[in-house]
Amino acid sequence: MTRATVVAVDELRDRLTRLLSATVLSETDAVRLAAYFVDAEVSGRTSHGLQRLAGLLAALEGLDGPTRLETRQHGPSAWSVEANGAPGLLAAQRAVELAMASEATSVAAVGVTGFAGTTGALGHFTDQVARGGRIGLCMVACESGVAPVGGIDPVLGTNPLAVSFPTDADPVTVDISTAAVSYGTLQLLARAGRPAPEGTVIDSAGRSSTDPLAADSGAQLPMAAHKGYGLGLVVELLAGAMLGAKVGRLAAPGTDGLLLVVAPVDQFRPRDLVMLDAGRLVEELRDSRPADPAHPVRVPGDRAAKARHRSHTTGTVSLDASLWDDLLARTGGS
Amino acid sequence: MTRATVVAVDELRDRLTRLLSATVLSETDAVRLAAYFVDAEVSGRTSHGLQRLAGLLAALEGLDGPTRLETRQHGPSAWSVEANGAPGLLAAQRAVELAMASEATSVAAVGVTGFAGTTGALGHFTDQVARGGRIGLCMVACESGVAPVGGIDPVLGTNPLAVSFPTDADPVTVDISTAAVSYGTLQLLARAGRPAPEGTVIDSAGRSSTDPLAADSGAQLPMAAHKGYGLGLVVELLAGAMLGAKVGRLAAPGTDGLLLVVAPVDQFRPRDLVMLDAGRLVEELRDSRPADPAHPVRVPGDRAAKARHRSHTTGTVSLDASLWDDLLARTGGS
Repeated sequence: MTRATVVAVDELRDRLTRLLSATVLSETDAVRLAAYFVDAEVSGRTSHGLQRLAGLLAALEGLDGPTRLETRQHGPSAWSVEANGAPGLLAAQRAVELAMASEATSVAAVGVTGFAGTTGALGHFTDQVARGGRIGLCMVACESGVAPVGGIDPVLGTNPLAVSFPTDADPVTVDISTAAVSYGTLQLLARAGRPAPEGTVIDSAGRSSTDPLAADSGAQLPMAAHKGYGLGLVVELLAGAMLGAKVGRLAAPGTDGLLLVVAPVDQFRPRDLVMLDAGRLVEELRDSRPADPAHPVRVPGDRAAKARHRSHTTGTVSLDASLWDDLLARTGGS
Repeated sequence: MTRATVVAVDELRDRLTRLLSATVLSETDAVRLAAYFVDAEVSGRTSHGLQRLAGLLAALEGLDGPTRLETRQHGPSAWSVEANGAPGLLAAQRAVELAMASEATSVAAVGVTGFAGTTGALGHFTDQVARGGRIGLCMVACESGVAPVGGIDPVLGTNPLAVSFPTDADPVTVDISTAAVSYGTLQLLARAGRPAPEGTVIDSAGRSSTDPLAADSGAQLPMAAHKGYGLGLVVELLAGAMLGAKVGRLAAPGTDGLLLVVAPVDQFRPRDLVMLDAGRLVEELRDSRPADPAHPVRVPGDRAAKARHRSHTTGTVSLDASLWDDLLARTGGS
């Protein structure tokens, strides 16, 4: 973030809704997408926030009519969504709505294909599921960029994975790329003129590189060597091969696949007992001895939840000033 | 492995079955466990093979009667197994049998608690599921040993996780610890007088250490920093809090929890299309450019499958000679 500016959350939401309603989107979809961007910003997920707006608007200009998401039911608790080129953010949100409307006592799965552009931060979607009281698991088989261990061709996608587990307070949300660092991080480093961390990028000849842009002609490396390679492959099998979305290098844009799985927490014992133990574990982690006394141990999701609560209390959010200026320019006034 | 000896697989199975039948185990359970050890050895999973036999036998001596696994159904596709102190290996095998007997068109979940000792290599169990044509996911919330990122207390277990996906050839099997290195690896290093890799162990004051035994009073570190911390926490929520098994440090022995999830591959489109794409992805990885031309790129599960095929062809398996000698001594003859 370069320069920051503090704005009212309501004004942010209003301007986004107005801007998005003026596109091919239906009013409902405009509201959905505005809610996504507001949540990304108030949760501090800025890498998947307003900086993705311009790309989304450009993609919407390419559509020749309103988005048309086709839903198909494949069994008592499996659905697929064919997005017909609609933005990934909308398609992922539809998946959440379908899964949350399903029978709460069994495991539901939704496969999403045919969407354009990013699905956004997957934790945004699993977090909604957990706030609804269920476990959310989401993964995306996406554009190739990661070489297998022992290889130098970028066969696998960066294939992110998110899980949210409900607690009586905020959900625990884990949201990771199976690449050593996300592609977005490499782009941020390149723009800042900074090197890529050792062991994250190779050039086209397979040589280790610290040039973040080397990954574009070479490859990214998986997180934790064979462990990240394995998990990335599992994501590509589940969200790619199983759904009929991309597998391997030959994928064209718009062939990404997203799998959302929603499961009850109380299949094995009463919810209140599960919540008691989940809360106890989270507290034990927070109360455990920190390496640095000035920095208590955090639980995944803490930072986003804290930022969100702060915005809720103040009614404001801190934004990258240039992104806000851009939104002002697009929506009139200042 | 110190010195190796080649033995007939049939003799290995016979001796194991004979030895285990002479314990409190039923004949069926003895056969189940013998099959586990044979498979671990022919698949090259030696860290979870015969070297665990002595520990199992000692645990069985502590039982005052035959094992008694209690199964309970919680819904159309959820079961729990209370092992009443039976070995984890048997309890995990029961979970596989229950899940595989379930309706093949929906997602089945089995929670296992109350077992003693190790559950063995989780890939052994998910691999069976995938050979039966379905996707297997297995995780264990186990004895505490791993500190959270930013912390120094070993709150979480090393919490391993395995996934197998079927293909028309051998399954893809990913089997990882969410700790940077497994506890078993640290013990092997300690015995060999070798240091622990940088960034895997801290001492009781939270200082980085290369003494593999420092983890016993200090802690292990998660794989890939916050990513492994997050995944380890998810395992402890799902296989611990959700099942009523261990959460956090206060766990006593016998409080580990195991969760097995089995899912169909053809909920979204026909199996043959899924298998076609899965096979294509696996081949593309194997055919991709290797970093070292002498070492083609491997797919997770390749090494175990190759070892298993070799044993199947020759009818023999290579064992640690001292472990084989021990088995001979326990079963008579030479």
